[in-house]
Amino acid sequence: MSDPEIARLREIIAARPRATEIAQMRIDIDQRGRAFGLAPDVSVQKVDAGGVPAEWTATPDADSAGAILYFHGGGYVIGSLDSHRHLAGEVGRASGTRTLAIDYRLAPEHPFPAPVQDAVISYRYLLDSGIAAKRIVLAGDSAGGGLVVGAMLAIREAGLALPAGGWCISPWVDMEAKGASFIDRAETDPTVQKATIEMMAQWYLGGANPRHPHAAPLYGDLRGLPPLLIQVGAVETLLDDSIALARKAAISDVMVNLQVWPEMIHVWPLFFPMLTAGRCAIADGGSFVRNLTRGH
Amino acid sequence: MSDPEIARLREIIAARPRATEIAQMRIDIDQRGRAFGLAPDVSVQKVDAGGVPAEWTATPDADSAGAILYFHGGGYVIGSLDSHRHLAGEVGRASGTRTLAIDYRLAPEHPFPAPVQDAVISYRYLLDSGIAAKRIVLAGDSAGGGLVVGAMLAIREAGLALPAGGWCISPWVDMEAKGASFIDRAETDPTVQKATIEMMAQWYLGGANPRHPHAAPLYGDLRGLPPLLIQVGAVETLLDDSIALARKAAISDVMVNLQVWPEMIHVWPLFFPMLTAGRCAIADGGSFVRNLTRGH
Repeated sequence: MSDPEIARLREIIAARPRATEIAQMRIDIDQRGRAFGLAPDVSVQKVDAGGVPAEWTATPDADSAGAILYFHGGGYVIGSLDSHRHLAGEVGRASGTRTLAIDYRLAPEHPFPAPVQDAVISYRYLLDSGIAAKRIVLAGDSAGGGLVVGAMLAIREAGLALPAGGWCISPWVDMEAKGASFIDRAETDPTVQKATIEMMAQWYLGGANPRHPHAAPLYGDLRGLPPLLIQVGAVETLLDDSIALARKAAISDVMVNLQVWPEMIHVWPLFFPMLTAGRCAIADGGSFVRNLTRGH
Repeated sequence: MSDPEIARLREIIAARPRATEIAQMRIDIDQRGRAFGLAPDVSVQKVDAGGVPAEWTATPDADSAGAILYFHGGGYVIGSLDSHRHLAGEVGRASGTRTLAIDYRLAPEHPFPAPVQDAVISYRYLLDSGIAAKRIVLAGDSAGGGLVVGAMLAIREAGLALPAGGWCISPWVDMEAKGASFIDRAETDPTVQKATIEMMAQWYLGGANPRHPHAAPLYGDLRGLPPLLIQVGAVETLLDDSIALARKAAISDVMVNLQVWPEMIHVWPLFFPMLTAGRCAIADGGSFVRNLTRGH
């Protein structure tokens, strides 16, 4: 462990209470997100995205011809616009475009495929508002990172044009938690254990097939999908979800860039205000978006 | 298959004779390399790198404060300065620095660890000539891509400072050819089959342990190594060598960027004069080198 910033973050995480009730987990993640505040130059505009509650964040120089469609993490069970607003704003800044983050319905009240449906509805809303598919990138973290790929499959099945790319931060793509990293990274991961994933999967699926491609895109037909950027922390139990997704995309002839960041924990970009590696990862993602949506 | 350039390259490869004698294989790979010519602004300077035959290539604006140390591919059995000069020159151009390519000894005449020894000797030559380790990046393709990582381990064991990074193009890192891609990519790979790798490994090892970390860095202690860029083609039988190397580096807390390029074949950057994806991959590698050696 050589990065003092991540060491300090680990201390903070170790010291904070860990709720087990869903209601309290939701309160906690939202409160922690809001506590990061928002850069003063980021504007926020609530919007009804075809029935899905959503909000635009934008920096003053954001190009309104394109958009990031952002899906927050939280195992499809917790998380909201509040928990991830600071990240959505910074993702947009790095990408030079506006970000539409959606408040998709959460399990267990609204199990699979409700979040996928909300993702497709909001994507269609962007298209209907006049933004070209080739100027849209889907982005998300954790469950939202898996949703990036699951939603692409659903978007294609709905007969819509695919977006220009997908940016997956610490994506969760395997509902069965089969990765070896759940064992060999268990000691190094301070926030996600196999039992957590299994519980979230049970709530999310609500009895659905754990290998449905919209929930577990490892089992989907990825051929023809646009380029994917996958960013994952080296100490994560979910490391093998990223590696398996990269391999699946690779053998499906999808352009893949897998970045593994030493010492970094699950969804470390969420902590960017206190973590240089978080800001660097967001900057890299922004370059990925700029290259895809503006040509290079 | 949507890229007409790679389709044309596949036709050329399918039509050309495939030698089975080592002497002819060496003649063929050198002839094919020379046939690509060399950009007129690339200078070539032969040098004795501490006893290892080598040559500098440089474009006029190359920064002489740093260097790429380049290891050509060819299974440790074939390949030379001639076969890869055009690639070495372009790697340097993209990186904004000079390239020292080495003519390391080849198996079966000079089996393992001769190439690793030559790599360390030439690295020490660079240090002795006044180039700082932090301004040197090791780069190579195929066997040379594996040698990038094997040589780093040997460099550390020799008590020398590690270079700033490693750029591995279609690296070969597993002497036992255990990757699933030797089966599920066998039909799509036009140049490398499991039998080829097994034959090369036998020649290279000459009876040495196939899991010696200097030959198969998958089995080494990679902790503390500098950042690695791994570029691999999606249709390669060696795809899983790259994925396994990325995972091994990841759990060793090494910064890894794994790029998988759709439709691309083994060491496609070698064909950059006729392949846009080859030029793009070299450009990406050049950015990796510039970021590492000049700060960002």
